[in-house]
Amino acid sequence: MEKFKRNERVAGLIKILSDNPNNLFSLNYFSELFTAAKSTISEDIAAAKKIVEQISLGQIETISGAAGGVKYRPYVENGDAIGFLDELCEKLRDPKRIIPGNYIYMSDVIYDPRVSAKVGEIFATHFMNSGVEYVVTIETKGITLANMTARALNVPLVILRRENRVTEGSTVSINYVSGSTKRIQTMFVSKRAIPEGKKVLIIDDFMKAGGTAKGILDLMKEIKAEVCGIGVLMKTIEPKEKMVQDYISLLEVGEVDEHKGLINIYKDMLFS
Amino acid sequence: MEKFKRNERVAGLIKILSDNPNNLFSLNYFSELFTAAKSTISEDIAAAKKIVEQISLGQIETISGAAGGVKYRPYVENGDAIGFLDELCEKLRDPKRIIPGNYIYMSDVIYDPRVSAKVGEIFATHFMNSGVEYVVTIETKGITLANMTARALNVPLVILRRENRVTEGSTVSINYVSGSTKRIQTMFVSKRAIPEGKKVLIIDDFMKAGGTAKGILDLMKEIKAEVCGIGVLMKTIEPKEKMVQDYISLLEVGEVDEHKGLINIYKDMLFS
Repeated sequence: MEKFKRNERVAGLIKILSDNPNNLFSLNYFSELFTAAKSTISEDIAAAKKIVEQISLGQIETISGAAGGVKYRPYVENGDAIGFLDELCEKLRDPKRIIPGNYIYMSDVIYDPRVSAKVGEIFATHFMNSGVEYVVTIETKGITLANMTARALNVPLVILRRENRVTEGSTVSINYVSGSTKRIQTMFVSKRAIPEGKKVLIIDDFMKAGGTAKGILDLMKEIKAEVCGIGVLMKTIEPKEKMVQDYISLLEVGEVDEHKGLINIYKDMLFS
Repeated sequence: MEKFKRNERVAGLIKILSDNPNNLFSLNYFSELFTAAKSTISEDIAAAKKIVEQISLGQIETISGAAGGVKYRPYVENGDAIGFLDELCEKLRDPKRIIPGNYIYMSDVIYDPRVSAKVGEIFATHFMNSGVEYVVTIETKGITLANMTARALNVPLVILRRENRVTEGSTVSINYVSGSTKRIQTMFVSKRAIPEGKKVLIIDDFMKAGGTAKGILDLMKEIKAEVCGIGVLMKTIEPKEKMVQDYISLLEVGEVDEHKGLINIYKDMLFS
């Protein structure tokens, strides 16, 4: 007698797969967990696939062969991303967010786990086929977004430091010029963090002139990592010419004016 | 005719609930999503509850009444936590991790999304009934753990800064003495981050003398937040007397000796 009913197995399967995005599970794993025949599990997977796709909650992919199995890929459809980003803009447009100096207070938003999880899935969807092996960010404000992107892609996260810390062991550093403030700054990566030749995706919260992103690119070159993408939550419209090409941003911000109580923030082209 | 079969509805329900931990959904929400009667959805929920609990993947809770609904709570059973922490110790005991000065390199481990997600669920399980309204950490190394704890509890995350940043707006700061280095340091919290009277849970990666945790406690008192718990991934055995009481740690570390290639690290009492 089988221990679980079909609906129970399908539900359990979906729970385990979606808790472990981009993690390959063998059919054997589920066959043992549910004490069911592999042919039964195959049918369960087909049912799981159907429901996940029908209610637009990602994709279940089966890989055949000896090293095969089944995995779940978070997949945010364009319409879903647009709705989410519209809401985000709405929230960020609140004039109470303006900080003297015409900055926008947005820590509460980017640290909100529901926001960072969704942003992470949007980045993961975009860079799904880029062969990302590591997600890289620099402390501090991009960490929650990078963390959730790494989770969705099931790859390790690396956090670059702005100061040399004893707990990082031996480090490689570069000096770079912040594009907006023109000040010389330093960033550090642990020599243990990324082996040579690995493909990395750079994630950050904000890009103005792109000096920080350029710094990370240069540091990655130093340690012989290959950058396969750059994603930022928000870029400024000015300056138009950034110090890096080939990046995506989800939002763009134009004029911020404390006096007029104005924050011009929109979805970027990718989702317009 | 109903659009989805029972197994499809149950699976979809579990997917949505577990993607949004501690988020209350009304029966109406699922009734509309699946175009099914509320009585049918009630039966689906009962089936979902059974499977989730039977394979130890958390808890589905129903709340009755007008403001009621259904939610998913991550719940890590003790045996599961123990197995995970044993594996973590095993990984961290590798003598190659010893950094000159007898520190342990562990960034790769605490930034691994699979590790931080599990640690977050363990903390969420422990503090489930503490009424946590905010999770608070201080940059940088505890952020991934705090982020995942906040996600599991479905509450906002607040990151304290070690320097005053323009993007935080007006801040409140305190000076504190690091328990181990005896140096005076400063930490900052945005005045917008936590309203008065809220219950906060402090999460960090590491506790030696407890000076940082004590600093956070003091800063929370300044902004009239109520600390309802402190959780750290790892504490040192020495000094035995920490500067804070009432904390939990998952692991404890004793002697680290580069010469002997020795890292003494174990599960802490809570999971022994």
